[in-house]
Amino acid sequence: MLERVRLDYSNLLVADEGIMEEIHGIRKRITCAVAGMRKKKESNLQGFFRLPYQTEEKEDIKIHARYIKENFENFVVVGIGGSALGNRFLHRALNHPYYNMLSWEERKGCPRIFVLDSIDTDYLAGLLDILDLKKTAFNIITKSGGTSETMANFMVIRDLLERMVGRERAPEHITVTTDRERGSLLKIAREKGYRTFYIPQNVGGRYSVLSPVGLLSAAVSGIDIDGLLEGASDMAERCSKENPFNNPALLAAIFQYLAYRRGKNISVVMPYSEFLDGFGDWYCQLWAESLGKTRDAESTGQTPVKAVGARDQHSLLQLFLDGPDDKIYTLLEVENRDRDFEIPRQDMGDKGVNYLSGNSVGKLLNSEFRATGYVLTKRKRMNYRLILPHISSNTIGQLVFLYMYMTAYAGELLGIDAFNQPAVEEGKTITYGLMNREGYEDRAEEMLNWEKSVKRVYV
Amino acid sequence: MLERVRLDYSNLLVADEGIMEEIHGIRKRITCAVAGMRKKKESNLQGFFRLPYQTEEKEDIKIHARYIKENFENFVVVGIGGSALGNRFLHRALNHPYYNMLSWEERKGCPRIFVLDSIDTDYLAGLLDILDLKKTAFNIITKSGGTSETMANFMVIRDLLERMVGRERAPEHITVTTDRERGSLLKIAREKGYRTFYIPQNVGGRYSVLSPVGLLSAAVSGIDIDGLLEGASDMAERCSKENPFNNPALLAAIFQYLAYRRGKNISVVMPYSEFLDGFGDWYCQLWAESLGKTRDAESTGQTPVKAVGARDQHSLLQLFLDGPDDKIYTLLEVENRDRDFEIPRQDMGDKGVNYLSGNSVGKLLNSEFRATGYVLTKRKRMNYRLILPHISSNTIGQLVFLYMYMTAYAGELLGIDAFNQPAVEEGKTITYGLMNREGYEDRAEEMLNWEKSVKRVYV
Repeated sequence: MLERVRLDYSNLLVADEGIMEEIHGIRKRITCAVAGMRKKKESNLQGFFRLPYQTEEKEDIKIHARYIKENFENFVVVGIGGSALGNRFLHRALNHPYYNMLSWEERKGCPRIFVLDSIDTDYLAGLLDILDLKKTAFNIITKSGGTSETMANFMVIRDLLERMVGRERAPEHITVTTDRERGSLLKIAREKGYRTFYIPQNVGGRYSVLSPVGLLSAAVSGIDIDGLLEGASDMAERCSKENPFNNPALLAAIFQYLAYRRGKNISVVMPYSEFLDGFGDWYCQLWAESLGKTRDAESTGQTPVKAVGARDQHSLLQLFLDGPDDKIYTLLEVENRDRDFEIPRQDMGDKGVNYLSGNSVGKLLNSEFRATGYVLTKRKRMNYRLILPHISSNTIGQLVFLYMYMTAYAGELLGIDAFNQPAVEEGKTITYGLMNREGYEDRAEEMLNWEKSVKRVYV
Repeated sequence: MLERVRLDYSNLLVADEGIMEEIHGIRKRITCAVAGMRKKKESNLQGFFRLPYQTEEKEDIKIHARYIKENFENFVVVGIGGSALGNRFLHRALNHPYYNMLSWEERKGCPRIFVLDSIDTDYLAGLLDILDLKKTAFNIITKSGGTSETMANFMVIRDLLERMVGRERAPEHITVTTDRERGSLLKIAREKGYRTFYIPQNVGGRYSVLSPVGLLSAAVSGIDIDGLLEGASDMAERCSKENPFNNPALLAAIFQYLAYRRGKNISVVMPYSEFLDGFGDWYCQLWAESLGKTRDAESTGQTPVKAVGARDQHSLLQLFLDGPDDKIYTLLEVENRDRDFEIPRQDMGDKGVNYLSGNSVGKLLNSEFRATGYVLTKRKRMNYRLILPHISSNTIGQLVFLYMYMTAYAGELLGIDAFNQPAVEEGKTITYGLMNREGYEDRAEEMLNWEKSVKRVYV
């Protein structure tokens, strides 16, 4: 039985009585957005839509995952941004919360999983401390094939690996995930004979989690990638409907768009689940990098904020309730969990605690979820709920596609390109210059001159 | 030699030429804020100022930490919000990045450290899977003594513990950290004879990291708590000066205040260090809960956002640069690390990568840090830098006090109480009602009636 992720927008109708009328008022814009999406799909300029149907690649991934599993104890994803966050999201959502601390038997023979998206050298040193390179496989992921952080880490690691296992055997430890036709990493991989997976050219980093980028590490850790893709494909169908009241991604995008238009420049996503913490980080990249854009000298972009319930009720909720009305909230609930704990029936000798006896921890979490929705609604804060019946590869696949579609629709509504990231180029070229890359000398000079001109003042 | 944390505000002077004049324009407000702080200190209504000087308690903590270390393999902090985030911050900043995966010898005989701030039952089950309760000690932390999440987890855990080691021996595993005079947990602890540490009554949760709340787990994992308190005390002195140009907390608070007044409702803190990720979460609570307030029907509150460099350049930077000018940025640099990696001098066969050869990974991180400051400044985005010479218990102690003072000064400048959190009470009382706590029946009824009245609509 398919467990469908549902968008429940009743709180929003209560908090904001005019919203239906407002939706009606932008119906032309909505129609255009739907048409724009259809065009994108048909033109094949954007490819994430097709990811659920890459059946051949999927089988290759499974076979290679088996090879990794049979030969290695550790699997390290070396990537950054879209080449790291999706991996971490799937791993945290679908594996044991202390997966890497489980024994080999408890992990059912699957390797431990690490994601290296840092160039903090003490952190890198720390990771290398605990890895026996002889038993470690690496997946180097960069779509462009030249991401400096990823390539720097790769060069350091490959050198250590070659010294440890020899140049001949090092390639057995290295998998590469990159563009099929261009880039430095592809060239290197071909020369050295590294096993290579490809990211479709029309799929950007932050839309790539259900390509080999995210699927290989998922499969290595035993996640059911068929389930992920089935969930995604089911959601893709729902998100292709023209009527927003039948299309959860479109409807959510409309809510976000209207909120933004009213000055709510912050979008909070608050899952009441420890397993969706990584989803929150993945969402933040997707939303920020897709929608933070300047067009015709005008800036757009809602800032995404992750909060995790119930714990962030003790951190951010005070601001959410009493602070400015500058946010729209998505509250995520997981309806069913595998385990629950009854709070023992015992007299704690104090009525400030005794009421908990005989309740369950699960009931407490559910009560807090409902209470938060209620107090936000009472204060007329825009909020809607997203219900996951259960956390499974299928519902996570649905969630991924719901959010990718939603982001793309939001881009259409805002009239911006949700698939590029032009602004980050500038910092990159300056960094190239500082690292003495040929052809970027002027960028380094520009910044060094600026640094010289600035009088540094300290307290 | 003391390594001082420095605030470098030169970028801000460049990005925003009018800022000095603006500071001059609010000099009366600044004087009032300084006077307000002095009054708070002298009145003893707020106590975080005094935490660095609690020498007697500090020795007790060390002795008890030794007991834990000698008798247990795992130490679990059970707390939420201010009773969890500070612990995680210190642990992540000052211990090995994969501390819990190190061997007992590598940890120098210190127990593994866990922080349980979740009531997600599958997560709790996961934690219990990997803990051998016979070898595990717990520190139950709640200032009020009745935090429902913490007490629910405690009751579940205590029951399991009593079944495992017997009622007689269970108290040996349990430490309690709470108020000295009131609360359910105190009552229970006295009855059962649990070892108890006290949180000063005039220190709120989010200001308590350098009280026993954070110090015990730090000491258990081998962190030098003397260094923390020394750093804090040095910073406290600097943050007591009247002249903002000699007082980093006051100056930073002024920048944040002016930014907020100009509509920058988002405050980004972006450490270029993997070890300060937990600092970011700790800061988010401190800033949000302290400054998100309604006063005279007017709402105040800047939304804190954590970004970690360099990785979030591949996630949030596009929005920071091209999105709306609604943020102020604090970029944190760590100047010196223990380890660095030279990127091997080898011909990768491609100039898109070869330029990295012979550089170091540390240089890449530093270059990116500088480039980000430069591009933000060029775009006139308000930003300033915070320099940590090195990550040590001393500089982390400084950082903690810098931020607590800064938050308190910001409260004074905004004219709000930075030490309460009135809005979260409502959700709590409703939850009490739903959990059948005596005296809260009407709150449950109110919400249940509301839920009945709402027509649930789904997509």
